[in-house]
Amino acid sequence: MKNKIGFIGLGNMGIHMAKNLIEAGYHLQVHNRTLNKADELDQAGITKCQTPAEAAAGVPIVITMLSEDEVLRESVTGPDGILKTLQPNAVHISMSTISPETAVELAKAHEQAGSHYLASPVFGRPEAAAAKKLFICVSGPQQVKDTVKPVLGCLGQAIHDFGEEVGGANVVKIAGNFMIMASMEMMAEAYTLAEKNGLDRAQVANFFGSTLFNAPIYQNYGRLIANKQYEPVGFKAKLGYKDARLAFKLSQASYTPMPLVNAVHSRLLSAVAKGLGDKDWVEGFGRGVSEDAGL
Amino acid sequence: MKNKIGFIGLGNMGIHMAKNLIEAGYHLQVHNRTLNKADELDQAGITKCQTPAEAAAGVPIVITMLSEDEVLRESVTGPDGILKTLQPNAVHISMSTISPETAVELAKAHEQAGSHYLASPVFGRPEAAAAKKLFICVSGPQQVKDTVKPVLGCLGQAIHDFGEEVGGANVVKIAGNFMIMASMEMMAEAYTLAEKNGLDRAQVANFFGSTLFNAPIYQNYGRLIANKQYEPVGFKAKLGYKDARLAFKLSQASYTPMPLVNAVHSRLLSAVAKGLGDKDWVEGFGRGVSEDAGL
Amino acid sequence: MKNKIGFIGLGNMGIHMAKNLIEAGYHLQVHNRTLNKADELDQAGITKCQTPAEAAAGVPIVITMLSEDEVLRESVTGPDGILKTLQPNAVHISMSTISPETAVELAKAHEQAGSHYLASPVFGRPEAAAAKKLFICVSGPQQVKDTVKPVLGCLGQAIHDFGEEVGGANVVKIAGNFMIMASMEMMAEAYTLAEKNGLDRAQVANFFGSTLFNAPIYQNYGRLIANKQYEPVGFKAKLGYKDARLAFKLSQASYTPMPLVNAVHSRLLSAVAKGLGDKDWVEGFGRGVSEDAGL
Amino acid sequence: MKNKIGFIGLGNMGIHMAKNLIEAGYHLQVHNRTLNKADELDQAGITKCQTPAEAAAGVPIVITMLSEDEVLRESVTGPDGILKTLQPNAVHISMSTISPETAVELAKAHEQAGSHYLASPVFGRPEAAAAKKLFICVSGPQQVKDTVKPVLGCLGQAIHDFGEEVGGANVVKIAGNFMIMASMEMMAEAYTLAEKNGLDRAQVANFFGSTLFNAPIYQNYGRLIANKQYEPVGFKAKLGYKDARLAFKLSQASYTPMPLVNAVHSRLLSAVAKGLGDKDWVEGFGRGVSEDAGL
Repeated sequence: MKNKIGFIGLGNMGIHMAKNLIEAGYHLQVHNRTLNKADELDQAGITKCQTPAEAAAGVPIVITMLSEDEVLRESVTGPDGILKTLQPNAVHISMSTISPETAVELAKAHEQAGSHYLASPVFGRPEAAAAKKLFICVSGPQQVKDTVKPVLGCLGQAIHDFGEEVGGANVVKIAGNFMIMASMEMMAEAYTLAEKNGLDRAQVANFFGSTLFNAPIYQNYGRLIANKQYEPVGFKAKLGYKDARLAFKLSQASYTPMPLVNAVHSRLLSAVAKGLGDKDWVEGFGRGVSEDAGL
Repeated sequence: MKNKIGFIGLGNMGIHMAKNLIEAGYHLQVHNRTLNKADELDQAGITKCQTPAEAAAGVPIVITMLSEDEVLRESVTGPDGILKTLQPNAVHISMSTISPETAVELAKAHEQAGSHYLASPVFGRPEAAAAKKLFICVSGPQQVKDTVKPVLGCLGQAIHDFGEEVGGANVVKIAGNFMIMASMEMMAEAYTLAEKNGLDRAQVANFFGSTLFNAPIYQNYGRLIANKQYEPVGFKAKLGYKDARLAFKLSQASYTPMPLVNAVHSRLLSAVAKGLGDKDWVEGFGRGVSEDAGL
Repeated sequence: MKNKIGFIGLGNMGIHMAKNLIEAGYHLQVHNRTLNKADELDQAGITKCQTPAEAAAGVPIVITMLSEDEVLRESVTGPDGILKTLQPNAVHISMSTISPETAVELAKAHEQAGSHYLASPVFGRPEAAAAKKLFICVSGPQQVKDTVKPVLGCLGQAIHDFGEEVGGANVVKIAGNFMIMASMEMMAEAYTLAEKNGLDRAQVANFFGSTLFNAPIYQNYGRLIANKQYEPVGFKAKLGYKDARLAFKLSQASYTPMPLVNAVHSRLLSAVAKGLGDKDWVEGFGRGVSEDAGL
Repeated sequence: MKNKIGFIGLGNMGIHMAKNLIEAGYHLQVHNRTLNKADELDQAGITKCQTPAEAAAGVPIVITMLSEDEVLRESVTGPDGILKTLQPNAVHISMSTISPETAVELAKAHEQAGSHYLASPVFGRPEAAAAKKLFICVSGPQQVKDTVKPVLGCLGQAIHDFGEEVGGANVVKIAGNFMIMASMEMMAEAYTLAEKNGLDRAQVANFFGSTLFNAPIYQNYGRLIANKQYEPVGFKAKLGYKDARLAFKLSQASYTPMPLVNAVHSRLLSAVAKGLGDKDWVEGFGRGVSEDAGL
């Protein structure tokens, strides 16, 4: 059946992506560690699977949206991994934020198994996923990218192609998350400086977000940071810290000293050390800067 | 004569601002250290003055656009300073990037002399000044702000009011310049990381500048940084370093530890130490990151 | 009277130095902001003076041991400063930790007044001052150094000569205080790392202090840091912060990027911001590292 | 035979340690990747072995002195690893600088094999190894430590016991190497500051090394840094970078933010990126600071 897709990972992001695919007419073989998460989906459009291998059986495309290199690796090459069942020439669209190193390793495993791996990390918060507004970065063999285009088109507003080297899109994703984190640190510092000098944080944030820095990152995160509005938790500090580690590791692997990566890594390492790992990463930056300043 | 204005400082920014005021019908009593800079202006619209005092004589408003606290202080309170001639209730619109400390000091000097001081630093490169697209931040007594509104309206696209405390607008200006510098450092790091991992800097910069970071700072500086296009020199690294010092000093004065201020300060301090002071500040960041990475 | 000396500044250090000079047979014309501090001294050996000028009147040598550039400057060139009374060819031995910039400025003022200025900052805690164990660094004209040698010999265990340029000894003093601060930060980090990994801080500190790092700095401060023993207060965090500022300023003035200066400056800036300014600087480092680590 | 010992790793350090053991009457079953390195040893005292397994066969004690976690792991658990032949209750004295994580992992592997693992990293340069002046840190079961005491006594001047947890000594070693690196960075910064202010680097280094910082680290490295004497190469920058990575990784694993670890890590990462990996680590620090300062 041509419109059957394996879908693994129903977290904050994955759940919305799955809904969009079902709405677009695909039937999903879904797997999630806690499978009752799938109850939120249109039951007519899904088949619940106990393992990644089950979800990948008999489909031309399997999508993974998992939170860590280790979990993804297990889902691919583990005893119940998708390589156990994936048919020849099927494509694994790997949408998580992982290291290019892991991407290369998994691409090789797929190659040996006769299937294909496509790096396709995305930018966007859960709301963007729900609204099909994700920015999707891809890298891998041209033919594979052509094949999956219609599927990716149901998930995001644009597909950005970063070449045929498998890890390219992962590098872009890591670089981007670093830039987002550095922006939060920067705003937290600037708005705390303003506050300490008697200005209104929100007014300053609003000024920058509507003039020189009128981009979503500065408008959305800027408002939260300015108002010290740290709830509800959208993206956990410990996941942000994981991304900071990926950026740090990539800077090591490619011999690229990056002082600002050091800074954001230290900030989130400290946040987790202080017990804020399950709070929003905005709080990690915002509260961290405030506390250092004695506020 | 009501439409006479004193104008001091015909640098890269000031020269455009002066033109716009003349075009709007004002007659300028201009002063510049190297006065032949005034030859570029419509001679019918100006009177050349040998000193700040001369430029300030008999006018209701005097504008200064000078590059350093020290130079501005001398132009106000020095033996040939504007306080020597400024008439009662006249307003000094001070548009340079200076410390709030100096602003407070000069405001007091004006108060004692019976005149008014208005902090009015601006955001924008020379092109923006020419196109009347500057963002003007003001802080000071409400009545004074009301008085000069028509004049400022000839120079920028919007006036942002940061209250009655004299130094407020200066704090915003310093915070903003810090954010611009941190953005440049961030991009230089991210694009060098991309380059080291086999990606095309320009493609990565273009992606971010058109999606998550679609703001002028990331588009304009992003292109220069991605292409390592360091000429022509728009804003000198040594002036950027001066701004980094102002940010650092303000973080000290208000007890606000700011790791990213440290980072950008170190970057430009090193650029000046290496003899790049007269190069563009974009080069200070771009080349600095590249060299650290062995490129 | 040949053995009369002016002595200004009876703080934690000065009081011991004054005692040693009296004991050596000198008669001191002492001045201190809170003059009753002089009650601790042998009254037969002193004359209490209301101003620096009074203390400097009629003596061949005047010693200052004050805590800040600003205070010292006032004591020299202010309306009641020592230049008002100091006789021709008299020598001002300036023993505080100040910037070389201020040293040069004051040396010039002395030169114009016909007297001499000698930079003579010292290393050592109050106990060392009491025990005449200070390390004294001097810089200035050779003849002046020769003249005051006997006096300095009563205060320290050795005199280290850093040439004829007036600010040289001040640079050494600032560099040394930076090295002490960096050592404290380093130990706080290393011992916290050990603690977090289940080791005994004191044992680790004792190991390093008795092997690779068997120097007083690592033994004395090491013990305090390892035991988190932050009282009694020996040297206040806010004075340490002042020294960090001097180091930072000197790195700026001489275009020397110094990442570790940034680190210790941030640490103490944060300590003061958090209200620890009057605590020991050991606490500034020790508690700072612990708190960042969530301890 | 009771006095037979397996010895693996004849690098700069290992070769001297092997000589000392032979001199003390032990017969060594030696293995090294390039086995002709063993030609330097007294041939009567050794048996050359092609693999770690061969070297470990039939001995009560096997010593490893290898440069990396990965190499050590292979030598223990690999197909030709020592666990293949090591007899029950034999002890593996592991003297390399490795992560506590690897130590724990290897200790478990030994436990399962019925043998013992002892963490015994050392402090000291090759000269110290030759002179039996190493400081040996141990951690592991008390009985095992008692057993190997006589052997360790032939290698160092003192044995420092950090408890029974296997990784403890490794933490101390990593912390110590971090402190050494931070000391080099600190001196490079301080002496460059002195140089930039017209002082003689060597005089300043000599002053500190003979007063407040009169410890071997500051005397030996201080002289090299002051004189910019970067040859001959004693310890390669890339090995130093490996140690900086271990420190960084440990700070991550134990949630201990360490700004100075960031600083030394960045310094050596940049040194390697610039192609200085095979130069002395002193050069990594010394040249790095000089270049940033435009010297």
